Amino acid sequence: MFKVTFKFESGEGVEAFAASGENLLEVARKTNVAIDAPCSGNAACGKCRVKLLSGALDSQKTRHISDEEYASGWRLACVSKITEDVEIMVPDIASAYKSRMKAADLSSPQEIKIFEDAKRDLQEAGLELKNSLSLIPVEMTAPTLDDTMPDVERLERAVAAATGIKRVRIPYSVLKELPDKLRQYEFQVQCVVRCTSRDVFVYDIYGKEETVRAGGLVVDIGTTTVSALIIDMLNGDILAKATTGNGQIRYGADVINRIIESRKPGGQKKLQDAVIKETINPLIHTMCRTSGLKTSQIYRMSVGANTTMNHLFTGINAEPLRTEPYIPAFFKTNAVFANDLGIDINPDAHIIIAPNVGSYVGGDITAGTLTSMIWNKPELSVFIDLGTNGEIVFGNQDFLMSCACSAGPAFEGGDISCGMRATDGAIEACTIDPVTMEPTFHVIGEEGQKPVGLCGSGIIDVISELFRCNMISPKGKFIREGKRIRHDKYGMGSYVLAFQEDAGSVKDVEINEVDIDNFIRAKGAIFSGIQTLISSLDFDVSMVDNVYVAGGIGSGINMKNAVGIGMLPDIPLEKFHYIGNSSLSGSYAMLLSAEAERKVYELARSITYVELSTTPGYMDEFVAACFIPHTNTALFPSVTQVEISG
Amino acid sequence: MFKVTFKFESGEGVEAFAASGENLLEVARKTNVAIDAPCSGNAACGKCRVKLLSGALDSQKTRHISDEEYASGWRLACVSKITEDVEIMVPDIASAYKSRMKAADLSSPQEIKIFEDAKRDLQEAGLELKNSLSLIPVEMTAPTLDDTMPDVERLERAVAAATGIKRVRIPYSVLKELPDKLRQYEFQVQCVVRCTSRDVFVYDIYGKEETVRAGGLVVDIGTTTVSALIIDMLNGDILAKATTGNGQIRYGADVINRIIESRKPGGQKKLQDAVIKETINPLIHTMCRTSGLKTSQIYRMSVGANTTMNHLFTGINAEPLRTEPYIPAFFKTNAVFANDLGIDINPDAHIIIAPNVGSYVGGDITAGTLTSMIWNKPELSVFIDLGTNGEIVFGNQDFLMSCACSAGPAFEGGDISCGMRATDGAIEACTIDPVTMEPTFHVIGEEGQKPVGLCGSGIIDVISELFRCNMISPKGKFIREGKRIRHDKYGMGSYVLAFQEDAGSVKDVEINEVDIDNFIRAKGAIFSGIQTLISSLDFDVSMVDNVYVAGGIGSGINMKNAVGIGMLPDIPLEKFHYIGNSSLSGSYAMLLSAEAERKVYELARSITYVELSTTPGYMDEFVAACFIPHTNTALFPSVTQVEISG
Repeated sequence: MFKVTFKFESGEGVEAFAASGENLLEVARKTNVAIDAPCSGNAACGKCRVKLLSGALDSQKTRHISDEEYASGWRLACVSKITEDVEIMVPDIASAYKSRMKAADLSSPQEIKIFEDAKRDLQEAGLELKNSLSLIPVEMTAPTLDDTMPDVERLERAVAAATGIKRVRIPYSVLKELPDKLRQYEFQVQCVVRCTSRDVFVYDIYGKEETVRAGGLVVDIGTTTVSALIIDMLNGDILAKATTGNGQIRYGADVINRIIESRKPGGQKKLQDAVIKETINPLIHTMCRTSGLKTSQIYRMSVGANTTMNHLFTGINAEPLRTEPYIPAFFKTNAVFANDLGIDINPDAHIIIAPNVGSYVGGDITAGTLTSMIWNKPELSVFIDLGTNGEIVFGNQDFLMSCACSAGPAFEGGDISCGMRATDGAIEACTIDPVTMEPTFHVIGEEGQKPVGLCGSGIIDVISELFRCNMISPKGKFIREGKRIRHDKYGMGSYVLAFQEDAGSVKDVEINEVDIDNFIRAKGAIFSGIQTLISSLDFDVSMVDNVYVAGGIGSGINMKNAVGIGMLPDIPLEKFHYIGNSSLSGSYAMLLSAEAERKVYELARSITYVELSTTPGYMDEFVAACFIPHTNTALFPSVTQVEISG
Repeated sequence: MFKVTFKFESGEGVEAFAASGENLLEVARKTNVAIDAPCSGNAACGKCRVKLLSGALDSQKTRHISDEEYASGWRLACVSKITEDVEIMVPDIASAYKSRMKAADLSSPQEIKIFEDAKRDLQEAGLELKNSLSLIPVEMTAPTLDDTMPDVERLERAVAAATGIKRVRIPYSVLKELPDKLRQYEFQVQCVVRCTSRDVFVYDIYGKEETVRAGGLVVDIGTTTVSALIIDMLNGDILAKATTGNGQIRYGADVINRIIESRKPGGQKKLQDAVIKETINPLIHTMCRTSGLKTSQIYRMSVGANTTMNHLFTGINAEPLRTEPYIPAFFKTNAVFANDLGIDINPDAHIIIAPNVGSYVGGDITAGTLTSMIWNKPELSVFIDLGTNGEIVFGNQDFLMSCACSAGPAFEGGDISCGMRATDGAIEACTIDPVTMEPTFHVIGEEGQKPVGLCGSGIIDVISELFRCNMISPKGKFIREGKRIRHDKYGMGSYVLAFQEDAGSVKDVEINEVDIDNFIRAKGAIFSGIQTLISSLDFDVSMVDNVYVAGGIGSGINMKNAVGIGMLPDIPLEKFHYIGNSSLSGSYAMLLSAEAERKVYELARSITYVELSTTPGYMDEFVAACFIPHTNTALFPSVTQVEISG
């Protein structure tokens, strides 16, 4: 056994022991050291860079590490084997992708508006913003020698009288503390209850005079990013919001790699732990601190997630999703409780999982479809969710069609050498001067925050600007020279947005031809998906009245630039609407409103799933879309380039 | 810290560390060394005898240890403090009371008859022997590219079709394994389901060809003894039976001491662990080995226990039971599942707790009342359950009255110096020659088993015989001399049933005047309870047609001797019936038959509880009954004594 010491830029360190020949990335995973490997450790993405401080590793050279870098100790963890004691520096950049948890500033009107809009839209559509949870006063007379009714029967009778519902269910969690609480509060209590047509379920007991908040937890489990809210179930207020990376990221960037990892021995448990114990539970604790709620005061949870995430979250074998005939374990399940999964909230909390529609169109889309409101309009609309997968729903109040395109993690900064999630240090918007080729960009974070990498919206801007400035060809190859443009020894060109001395990173923040190529394939997948779905019904994009774009790709998306790179169809810009994280807002709606919850189940049943891979013409559309903006420039009349006088 | 080494007669040993001055019994409890202390460590019962092998203890002398014994190292653990390193021998006799787990011989017709009788009686009373659990074949077509229905929806549809019940509930435990099991069995399965009028709950999935047994667990939680069955829910067969001491015994012999212990810090959890982790779970594992069932194949559980045991078993504060106005947490609860309590069976198994009637008449009595069948007869009957508490139900098909008498643990061998449970080594029956005063007895166990102590039925016989042979006075004092009768230096008389050389014990097996006094008070409590209950309605014992005696007091009870000591009323012997452990047989019936379960709830509602302590005349009755057979000998015309020619 050899000793492996991981050191962080923060100065902290972790020690582990490894057998001779063991893979460094595996050792890091076992030790819970966050080294990202979006490609699941296949030396493809070059993200798992670490620096050797002492000792040696049996490590291949790859195109991701230059000779100078190799000489100064840089290695890819995924191709390094342990042969002796080593000290390893894990740069923050390597874990920026799985970034720090971020509690959102709820005073920001932008953050709140999206949920206020969702509430208004649902109400206008006639859905009542009322859920089954309520707080009721329950006053009882204390027992005496002449009135010896037991506590349970006394409470049942009083709750039945207060609610008018005869069947009262007192779960073990409440039963267990009943004699203590009733006596502590002298039989003058309030109960958090859930009333249905069948029965009333007692979740909790408080004193008559206590100020009670009944919390609900909303979680959007993205393949890359997990976002959550704690809401007040009684009035719909958002009490806390937070976001973090999905802890599963170290098992691969996309759902296919995750499924493969989950099938290794113990993998299902590992993947489930990564998203629950390492991701969701810490989010809950952070938000409970912010909002002053106890975890046991969260009585209901809703989840918006793609089909694979729903399987890995519930710890269910996801292999049938990726092998013919591609069968999910469930579209809808009603039987999962917090206690089953070890979610740190009230053990009896029901987990409402937004229903799946197919193996690649999941609850994030059905929840998102709800808040896109496309189901409530006579006009044709397109709803696009730009996540690690891109999903598209097309239709109106009469029909809904959906498909999924395997865009990869590029929109969330994956598969891009300097890509990162939309968090502090991410370039989220950019323009380039066509003459000087100097960039001007906006970085997420406080005043003076240095750029660390690029998030999705930033990448769209940069590529669109590079093309507009005639710096890259329609195939994404650099065709101008300049101090920010360089080529490595293999001939691969790149554009430097910030040199290391100006960057908050250990290397230059740049975008290279491989990144651009990855992004072109991602945007090509989306565009060809839209085209195929619409034309499968003999419609045309010109007939589309609204395009709703959702996803955590930045605080917003420059629609002009998204059209400019040929990701979105070239229709008037006013038809585009960025609706934020619709999986989160849709799951929020499901928790807040019983009618919204029912509506999502109804939508899920009515959405027709189209499997693109078996749809004739899709592959041709995809290949044609893998240019900037498209091989058929007639489709993008508004996209123009600056003339550069040679 | 000092080292305390506990050595057992078996040769095994356990080490512990203790602070100076720490109580030896407490150290043993913490170390999980079974030293019985029925009196909860108050130097009252003399059961916690241990022998010092090396070192010294700061230990009081008590009447329970003779000078010779003290000199040779015998001490009471409860009055001994640690002052240095010690080696302690824990005699088997000290743990005989909390005896070895005993798997019953199910080939014994006696063991089976009691349950067969219960089944026959219930059927004759018109109760159908059918429960809600069943095994149904569920055959599905495997999914294809043209039939992509998910697993959950596919199973729900097939189960709904098979049962005719629309609402199908698939719990997380089944959901979690669903894709694997359906594929393993190629979608040809059988399901263990529970069908109610509202829905069908899927407990488990098996292959079409598998032989499936759906188990049920029946547990009688006595204060002293815990007995259990595993039954086949599909046909009612008893698959295994086992009995052991209640692990809570080390926290006191009676319910009051247990409640007091449970209110100490961490006590509620300790008492719950003692009965579940140390008692019930080991019983389950033993019985699963015997029957070849997996623990997860036990889908439902029923519990017969007194009100205090029900509280301590469920981990609920029992203090309100013993303080005015004496309020239980529940009569009936429907909301407890195996998973809530950590019972090692299927996590979704519902725990059916036979309902309580009052703080001192619990589910053991309501379940027992069911199988006593007194509720189904026009004639008046008395049902008596002789446990650590004695409970009495009196009535017929028109009314039922009940009361509880605090008999103490004497009937199960507690509070008696050589008392023990009815297990190997217990003298269960005895006669004494009036002339030679030599005893003839029957010992439980294999041929040649030496006597270790006395169980309840043995004590009744011995005391009845001592009185019949004119060896003791009506007050229980020795009035004859002989080689088996001796008096200690305090003048206390005793009768030796087996001298040490003939006994399977470290000392003589004897009964002394304190034992007899304890037993007289126990039998007095029972008799006065019966008298008070019957006369409270202006009835008379002569009007009673049947007396059903239940309890784990031996393989049977000699009714003539029980009348002879004045425990049972002096009515014709043919009116007495020993019905075994009716709490167990009643709980068995509740599990086996949904109608029997409903009947028990109905009985519980109809039983009127009489609080003896506040009933006028009870104390006088009790005092009058504390003689052999009674101060009023006219009540016992059949009881005669042998004339001894002086």
